[in-house]
Amino acid sequence: MTTDRERTGPAWGTFLELESPAEGPLHARLARALRIAVTGGRLAAGSTLPASRVLAADLRCSRWVVTEAYAQLVAEGYFEARSGSATRVRAPAGPAGVRGGAREDRGRWTPRFDLLPGVPDLRAFPRKRWADMVRAATTELTWDELGYPDAAGLPRLRRQLASYLARGRGARVESGQLVVCAGTLDAVMRLCRGLRAAGHTDIAVEDPGWTQLRLTVAAAGLTPVAVPVDEHGLRVDLLRRAAGVRAVIVAPAHQFPTGVVLAPSRRAELADWAREVDGLVMEDDYDAEFRYDRHPVGALQGVAPEHVALLGSLSKTLSPAVRLGWIAAPERWTDALTAKATGGAPPPVIDQDAFTRFVASGSYDRHLRASRLRYKRRRDHLLRELEARLPGRPVSGAAAGFHLLLPLRDCPAGAVVDEAAQADVRLASLDDYRAAPAATGTPTASTLVIGYGNLTDQAVPGAVQRLAHAIERVQAAEHGTRVRRPG
Amino acid sequence: MTTDRERTGPAWGTFLELESPAEGPLHARLARALRIAVTGGRLAAGSTLPASRVLAADLRCSRWVVTEAYAQLVAEGYFEARSGSATRVRAPAGPAGVRGGAREDRGRWTPRFDLLPGVPDLRAFPRKRWADMVRAATTELTWDELGYPDAAGLPRLRRQLASYLARGRGARVESGQLVVCAGTLDAVMRLCRGLRAAGHTDIAVEDPGWTQLRLTVAAAGLTPVAVPVDEHGLRVDLLRRAAGVRAVIVAPAHQFPTGVVLAPSRRAELADWAREVDGLVMEDDYDAEFRYDRHPVGALQGVAPEHVALLGSLSKTLSPAVRLGWIAAPERWTDALTAKATGGAPPPVIDQDAFTRFVASGSYDRHLRASRLRYKRRRDHLLRELEARLPGRPVSGAAAGFHLLLPLRDCPAGAVVDEAAQADVRLASLDDYRAAPAATGTPTASTLVIGYGNLTDQAVPGAVQRLAHAIERVQAAEHGTRVRRPG
Repeated sequence: MTTDRERTGPAWGTFLELESPAEGPLHARLARALRIAVTGGRLAAGSTLPASRVLAADLRCSRWVVTEAYAQLVAEGYFEARSGSATRVRAPAGPAGVRGGAREDRGRWTPRFDLLPGVPDLRAFPRKRWADMVRAATTELTWDELGYPDAAGLPRLRRQLASYLARGRGARVESGQLVVCAGTLDAVMRLCRGLRAAGHTDIAVEDPGWTQLRLTVAAAGLTPVAVPVDEHGLRVDLLRRAAGVRAVIVAPAHQFPTGVVLAPSRRAELADWAREVDGLVMEDDYDAEFRYDRHPVGALQGVAPEHVALLGSLSKTLSPAVRLGWIAAPERWTDALTAKATGGAPPPVIDQDAFTRFVASGSYDRHLRASRLRYKRRRDHLLRELEARLPGRPVSGAAAGFHLLLPLRDCPAGAVVDEAAQADVRLASLDDYRAAPAATGTPTASTLVIGYGNLTDQAVPGAVQRLAHAIERVQAAEHGTRVRRPG
Repeated sequence: MTTDRERTGPAWGTFLELESPAEGPLHARLARALRIAVTGGRLAAGSTLPASRVLAADLRCSRWVVTEAYAQLVAEGYFEARSGSATRVRAPAGPAGVRGGAREDRGRWTPRFDLLPGVPDLRAFPRKRWADMVRAATTELTWDELGYPDAAGLPRLRRQLASYLARGRGARVESGQLVVCAGTLDAVMRLCRGLRAAGHTDIAVEDPGWTQLRLTVAAAGLTPVAVPVDEHGLRVDLLRRAAGVRAVIVAPAHQFPTGVVLAPSRRAELADWAREVDGLVMEDDYDAEFRYDRHPVGALQGVAPEHVALLGSLSKTLSPAVRLGWIAAPERWTDALTAKATGGAPPPVIDQDAFTRFVASGSYDRHLRASRLRYKRRRDHLLRELEARLPGRPVSGAAAGFHLLLPLRDCPAGAVVDEAAQADVRLASLDDYRAAPAATGTPTASTLVIGYGNLTDQAVPGAVQRLAHAIERVQAAEHGTRVRRPG
C-alpha cells in the first residue's frame, strides 16, 4: 500500500539501478548505484540529493538504508553533508561552486584588451537597479500575466516604447505598430518570414555589413544581395539597379562597421526608392542613441513610416544578456510579425515588465545619458592615444556608437589582427565584414575596426601601445626587417 | 559654445517642435509643444519628464523657461509634479499606474472559470524564490557573461539539465548534446530548420494534437502530415505508411490533448521505425513530470538516444512567463540547432543562471513534488465532482498532466463550449485540436477537453456545476425543450 507522498515523489526509484538482492544488502546496493550515477556524470557536481525520508519513501525502503548509503558516499568524498542543509554531490576537486566553474566552462578566448566592435560597456550594466525592476515585476505581475503572453508584447511596454521612440528617435509610431522581440536578429528573422510569405525572394544588405544579418536573411530562405557602402553610406543608386529587390536592411544612423552616417541626400533617395517599389526598409538602429558631435539623427522611420520598419534593442544600450528588442513596423506588417505561425514568441514577460518600469522611472534615459558621456570620453581618450602612437592616420566613423575605423594603407589588416592576438588584443579587420573581398589598393582595402565599448578607461593606453607594436611588427615583416617583440 | 552635458543630452530638442519665435515667448512655445506631444500620444501617461536643468541644457535655453512651461502644464492637468520626484505625464483619468492599466490593456477574455488546457497553476509560481535567484544571477554573473551569450546556453545550466533529465526523466544525455532554448515551439522551429537543411520535406504530427506544432512545422517551410492517435497513442503503423516522412513530433508520456500514454509496444515500434528510416523523433515532454498513478514513464529518448530529440520547457512546470526550454538532441543535430545561421538565439543569460541556481539548490525538485501533489488532489476533486454532477461518463487521459477528456456522446461539444462561455467558463472541444474534422458517430467525435492546472481548488465545484448546466441546456436545445438559465 503506497501513500500519496510516495506516489508523487521524483523518479529516483527508476533512476537508480539497484541490482538484484543477491548483490548484497540494500544500503550497499544503493551506495553503489549512487556512486555510479556520480562517476557516470548523471549526478552533476553541486546537485542536491533528496532528503533521506523522501528517497526512502520513493524506494520503499527504511530511512536508515538511505542515511547509511549517504554516509558511505560522504566518507568516500563523493558527497558532502553540512548540518542544516541538504546533502550534495561534491565537486571533483575542491569546493567549486556554480560561479567558480564559469571561466573553465566557456572555452572562449577572453583577451586582456578586447577591441572587438559591437560589445557595450558591460561594467556599466546597472545590476542592482535591473534586479530591483525584475523583483518588482516578479512580485507585482498579475497571476494572469504569468500565463501565456500577448504575442506582440506587454501592452504597457509598447506604449512606453512608442513614447520613447518618438521622444528619443523622432519616430512616428503608435503602440499598436510595435512588436516586442528578442533583439535585432529576431526582428530581421520575423520580418524576413513575413516578406517571404508576401512573395519577396531577395533582400539587400549593406556591404561591408554585419555578417549575422546576411546569415539570418539566408536562414529565412531568402537571398541576401550585397549593396556597397561608400563614405556617404548605402549606394542607393546601386540598390535601384538590383532587379527584383524591394527590401533592404540598412543602418542609417551609424553604419556597421564603417561608422558612416547616411548622407541627407541618400536618406531622401532611399525613402523615395521604398515608396516607388512599394518596398520595406529595415532600419537597424543598433547604436543610434550614442552620437557625440550633435543630436542623434532622427530615425528614417519618422520620414517614411509607411515603408520603414525601425528595429532597436537593448543589446548595445544595456546588455546583450537582456535579449529584448522591438520592431516598429508599418501596420500592414504587424500581423505577420506576431502571427504565431511565424514562430516568433515574445521575450519573457517578467523582463518586459522590468524594462517597462526601467523606462517609466526615467532610469533608462539616465542610463543612456551617462553612457553617452562615458563613451564620448573614452572615444576622445582613444583618439588622443591613437594620434600619439599612430600619428597621421585619418580615423573615421567616430561620430557615433563605440567603434571606429583605422586605415592601414601600408600593411594588411588581417596580419595586424593576428599579430595583436599574440599580444592578447582582440580586434577586427574591415575585410571580416565584407560579403566579397575588396580589391587591394582600394582606399578601404586595409582597415582595422576598433571597438571601445567594453574597454576600461585604464586599458586604453595599453591597448593602443600593443596595437602600435603589432602594426610595427607586421610592417617590419612586410619589409623584411625584424622588430623585437617586447617582453 | 556647447558643453559636453549639452551635447550628450537626449534628443528633446529635435522631438519638440518649438515653432518660430514669432509664435510667442519661448516658455509658451515649449508648453504648446509639450501639450501637443501629450495629446498626440507621443508622450505616454506615466512618462517621466527630464529635470528642468537637463531639458534647458538640451534646448539651449534658461532653466526658468522650462520650469515655467512645466508649471503651465501641471496647472492644466497634463503633468503632475510631486516634491522630491520627477515631473510626469498624468494619466487621462485618475491616477492609473503601471499596474492599474494591466487589465484594460489586454482586451482578452479572462473567464471566471478557466478550464482551457495547457496552463499550469500560475498561483503556485514561486515569485519570491524566483526573484531571489534572478537577483543572485544579476549580481554574480561575471562581466564577461553579460556579453553575447554562448549559443547553446550557459554550460553550467546544461550540466544541471543533463543531470536532471537523467534523474527525473531517465534520459541519456551528455551536457554537450543539450541546447537551451525559449520553449517547445522554439525547439521545434530550430529542429525543423535543421531538418529542412538536411533535405526533409514532411514532418508527421499527432492528430488530434497541439495546433501550434502544425503551424510551426509549416512556418519552417515543411509540410505537417497528420497521423491519427488512438487509445494506445500514435498509430505507428500509419506513420510507417506515410511515404517520405522520416521525422515525427510525438508526446509519448501524455499525449496532448487526448492524454493517452503511448503503449509499450508502440514505444518499441516507434523506436524501431526511427532506426529503420534513420529518422528523428521529436519527443514533446511537456508535462511528463506530473504522473499520478505510478512513476512517470521514462523518456523515449533514453531508449533510442541516437534517434530521439527530447524537448522540455518550464512552461508547464513553472510558468510560460519564464520562456526557458531545452533540446537534448542526437549529436549530429546539435550543430544545426546552435548555428547562428538558423536564427536561434539563446534565452536571456540572467534567466539561464537563475534557473541553474533554482535546480542546483533543490528548489526545482521541491517545486515539482509540491505541484504534483497539488495537481493530483485537484484532479481527484474534479473527478469526484464530475461523477456527482455528470455521472457515468468514462473520463480519460487523467493519469498525468493537468487536463482530462470528458466524452459527450449525446450532444455536440462545440455547442457546450459556446454555452459554457455564456456562463463565464472557458474550455475546449477535442475537435479544436484536429487536423481534419472527425466523422460524427466515431467514439471521440464529441468530447470536451478540461484543464484544471490553473483552476483554484475552491473553484472546482462551481466550474463543474456551470459546465453541467451548459450540457443540460445544449441537450435540451438538441431535443427541442427549454431549460432555464440560472441567474
